[in-house]
Amino acid sequence: MTIPTVPLEQQALQLYELRTGMLARVEERMRELLGGERTRWYDVVPRSVTPIEELARMTEAGGKRIRPALCVTGFLAAGGSPDDQLAVDAAAALEMLHASALISDDVMDDSALRRSQETVHTRQMGIHQNRSWHGEPRRFGEAVATLAANLGNVYADRLMMEAPLPAQEIWIELRTELMIGQYLDICAAAETLTDPRLASWIAICKSGRYTVYRPLVLGAALAGRVDLAPSFEVYGLAVGEAFQLRDDLIDAFGESGVSGKPTGSDFDQHKMTVLVSLAAERNEELRQFLAEGRHDPAELRRLLVAADAREAVEERITALLDRANAAIRQAPLDPAWQEDLVRLAYMVTHRDH
Amino acid sequence: MTIPTVPLEQQALQLYELRTGMLARVEERMRELLGGERTRWYDVVPRSVTPIEELARMTEAGGKRIRPALCVTGFLAAGGSPDDQLAVDAAAALEMLHASALISDDVMDDSALRRSQETVHTRQMGIHQNRSWHGEPRRFGEAVATLAANLGNVYADRLMMEAPLPAQEIWIELRTELMIGQYLDICAAAETLTDPRLASWIAICKSGRYTVYRPLVLGAALAGRVDLAPSFEVYGLAVGEAFQLRDDLIDAFGESGVSGKPTGSDFDQHKMTVLVSLAAERNEELRQFLAEGRHDPAELRRLLVAADAREAVEERITALLDRANAAIRQAPLDPAWQEDLVRLAYMVTHRDH
Repeated sequence: MTIPTVPLEQQALQLYELRTGMLARVEERMRELLGGERTRWYDVVPRSVTPIEELARMTEAGGKRIRPALCVTGFLAAGGSPDDQLAVDAAAALEMLHASALISDDVMDDSALRRSQETVHTRQMGIHQNRSWHGEPRRFGEAVATLAANLGNVYADRLMMEAPLPAQEIWIELRTELMIGQYLDICAAAETLTDPRLASWIAICKSGRYTVYRPLVLGAALAGRVDLAPSFEVYGLAVGEAFQLRDDLIDAFGESGVSGKPTGSDFDQHKMTVLVSLAAERNEELRQFLAEGRHDPAELRRLLVAADAREAVEERITALLDRANAAIRQAPLDPAWQEDLVRLAYMVTHRDH
Repeated sequence: MTIPTVPLEQQALQLYELRTGMLARVEERMRELLGGERTRWYDVVPRSVTPIEELARMTEAGGKRIRPALCVTGFLAAGGSPDDQLAVDAAAALEMLHASALISDDVMDDSALRRSQETVHTRQMGIHQNRSWHGEPRRFGEAVATLAANLGNVYADRLMMEAPLPAQEIWIELRTELMIGQYLDICAAAETLTDPRLASWIAICKSGRYTVYRPLVLGAALAGRVDLAPSFEVYGLAVGEAFQLRDDLIDAFGESGVSGKPTGSDFDQHKMTVLVSLAAERNEELRQFLAEGRHDPAELRRLLVAADAREAVEERITALLDRANAAIRQAPLDPAWQEDLVRLAYMVTHRDH
C-alpha cells in the first residue's frame, strides 16, 4: 500500500486554511460578545452602551490580528483540534486586550488617529466640546477612553475564564509584562533615557513577549504542550524584536496613509526606539546628540539617515529571522508547521503597516 | 444531657474574631503579592517598580475594607471554613480591584487627596515637574496612574485565577458593572443629568452591587452556596444604597480631616447624587434649580439645607436598613450569622468617613 503524499504547496495551503477558519471564528466571537453586551446593557440603561460601542468601533476598524494568528498557530502546531472553542476564545481575548491597550496608548501619546479612525479619547472630547457639556472636554474624553479600555480588559478576561490554569498563568504574566513595558516606555520618553539596554528590554516586553512569544505559548498550553515554551521563546523574542524594528522603520520612514496612524510620532515624543539605539551603536555623532538629551526631531531624523539606520535595521531583521527559524526547525513540531511558522515570521516582519 | 449554650454576646464575639482573623490574612496576602512582584521586577529592571510601589502605597494607606469584610462574611455565613485560601484570595482581589478603581476615579475627578495621601496622578505629575522631564507633567502623571490601576486589575485577576467557575462569573460581572457605573457617573456629571432614576441606577451599580451584593455572593459562591444569592441581593441593594447615601452625606456635610479626601467635591463636579435626587423629590425650588442645569455649588448646598435633605436621608437610611434586615432574617442562614449581618449593615451605614 502506498501512502498518498500531499505536495508541500498543498500542505501549506491546508494549514493556512485551518488558521484562517479559526481566525474567522475569532472575529465572530468578538462581535457576538460585544453585540450581546450592547443589547443587554441597552435594555438596562440605554446611555450606558457608549464604552461598549467605542470598543466595538476599535476592534472592527481592522488591525493585523497578529496575536490571534500566533495563538491559533501555536495551538494547531501543538496538535490542538481546529474545532476547539477555548483556543478561539483565547485568541479573541488577546485581540480584545490589544484593542484596550491601543485605546490607552493613544491617550498616553495623545494620538488622534488609529487604524484610520479617530481615537476614542479624541472623538469623545469632540462630542463633549460640540455639546458644550459641563467640565473639561479633555478630561471627559480621556475618562471615557480609560473606561472603554478597562471594559475591554474585563471582556478579555471573560473570554479567558474557562481556560485551564496553565493557560491562565501565561495570560496573567502577559498582561503584567504589557503594563510594565508600557510604563518603561513612557518613562524612557519622559526622562529621555538613551540606555540601549532599556530600549531593548522594552522591546522584549512589548513585542517579543506580548506580541509573539506569549500568544504562541498560550495556544500551545491550551493544547497541553507547555514543553514547546523554550523553542517558542527563542523564536518569539527574535521575531518580536524584528517586528518592533519594522514598526520603528514604518514610524520613521513610512507613510501615514498606509499605516493608518501618524508617522514620526516616536521622534516627536522623543522615544528611545530600538532603531535609534541600534543606529547609535554605529554612529558617534548620533551618540553625542543623544547624550545631550536635546529634543530636536528633525536633527534626529537627519542623523539616522546619515548613520544608514535603515540598512542597519534591515540587516538586523534578517539576522533575527535566521535565529528564529533555526529555533523553530529544531522544535518538536511537525515539519509542515515548522515551515508555516517560518513563513509567518517573514510575513509579520515584512509589512508596510 | 444538657447541651451547653453559648451566650449570644460570646457567640457574636466568636464570629467577629473569625472574620477579623481572615481579614488579617487578606492584608498579608496583598502585601506578599505586591512585595513579591516588587522584588521580582526590581531584579529585571529597577525602574519598572514605580507602578507596583504606587499600588502598594494606595492599598497600605488604609481604607475601610468593606468589600473584603463582606466577602469573608458571605463565605463564613455560608458555611465556609476559616482556613480556606481561595476566600482570602478573593477578598484580597476585591480590595486590589478597589484600590485600582480609586486610582482611576481620582484621575477622572482630578482629586488631589485620597486616604489622606497624595493621589497617584498628582504625585507623579509633581515628580515630572520637579525633575523637568520632557513632555507634559499632567499627561505623564495620569499615564502612570492609569498603568498602576491597570496593573492592580491584573493582580486582582491573578488572585482570582484559581477560583471555581461560578465565582469567576460573579467576579467578571462585578467588574463589568463597576465600569458601566463609572461611565454613567461621569456622563451624568458632564451632561448635568438630573434624572433621579439614573442617579438611583448608578448607586445600584456602584454601591448596591459592587460594594455589598457581589462581594457577599462571591463569598457564598466560594462556599458552594449560590442559593443565597436572592437574599443577599435584597440585603445588598438596600445596604448599598444606604452606604451611598452616607457617602453623599459625608461629602456634603462632613469634614475632610475625618474622611481623608476633600469634601464638597460632588457639588463642585455637579454630580447628581442620590442625596440630591431624594431631596429634589421633596422640594419644588430644588427641582426648579436642577431643571435649569445651572452650576452653582453654593446655591445647591443652600437649597439642600432648606429641603431638610439631611433628615430625609437619615430617614431613608433607616428604612433601607429595615428592608435589609428583614431579608437577612428570612435567609437560610444560622441565626448568629443573621445577627452578625444585621450589625454589619448598621456599621457600614453609620460611619463618619
